Amino acid sequence: MPETAFTVRPIGWVRSAATDAVDLDWGRVEARIVLEPALRRGLQGLADFSHVLVVTYLHGASFDPARHLVRRPRGIATMPELGIFAQRAKDRPNPLGVTVVPLVAVAEDGITVRGLDAIDGTPVLDLKPHFPEFDAAPAARVPPWVGELMRGYF
Amino acid sequence: MPETAFTVRPIGWVRSAATDAVDLDWGRVEARIVLEPALRRGLQGLADFSHVLVVTYLHGASFDPARHLVRRPRGIATMPELGIFAQRAKDRPNPLGVTVVPLVAVAEDGITVRGLDAIDGTPVLDLKPHFPEFDAAPAARVPPWVGELMRGYF
Repeated sequence: MPETAFTVRPIGWVRSAATDAVDLDWGRVEARIVLEPALRRGLQGLADFSHVLVVTYLHGASFDPARHLVRRPRGIATMPELGIFAQRAKDRPNPLGVTVVPLVAVAEDGITVRGLDAIDGTPVLDLKPHFPEFDAAPAARVPPWVGELMRGYF
Repeated sequence: MPETAFTVRPIGWVRSAATDAVDLDWGRVEARIVLEPALRRGLQGLADFSHVLVVTYLHGASFDPARHLVRRPRGIATMPELGIFAQRAKDRPNPLGVTVVPLVAVAEDGITVRGLDAIDGTPVLDLKPHFPEFDAAPAARVPPWVGELMRGYF
């Protein structure tokens, strides 16, 4: 890794009943993201969007190149050997999570979302409104292993 | 902002003919993302995806709460006053960019993508394969100002 480094700081924190990352049924989980008081005005206008993109800092992750640079997703023997940049696994060079989720409610101190795959206490680095122009890719192609891996995840 | 802070490091860098952030016609721009040598094996398997999610560190951005926490997009008088978390603008508390773009080619030292809205020299923090389950939201709703703002962007 290069010597160049940048500092990022939480804008808020996930508050959720989910305390274990089991990678199942995240779609049922409703979570709150409570913002730092000084940044709460930054939510103005977000309620007009149906979905929000959440960037998390996956504080429980670690990256060991020997174990994580190339591996089978979740260690499943039937999955292909894949580089970390071909996976959404959490143990990555920079432990950043990106998920687009339905926005349930906007309150004065934060937001409520459904289906965020992040445990209680996870630092949040950014919230962005979901613009299909930036985030969606109609007719996107993925390899067959993706469907198998994602079964039951949300 | 809280005292908690995290360090992130570039996994690679954008190499592009685009040197000015003019927010127009990004869809025509083809860019390379050249990875740090130690991380290049992490691309294994990415070529099976049609699209890649790119997380950039927007090194030219700055965040001044008085000017950027609530503002009209691009300062356009006909746009509503919006919080930064209801916008995709670059001057945000953590200057992280997220864009899903078509993957043109995977080479030994990096990838070629089309439509990445980032200038030459931008540090890249993460590459993820585009999984519709994580990134897309069929039937997403956005307010009317989004269509106007995004006209000609890609």
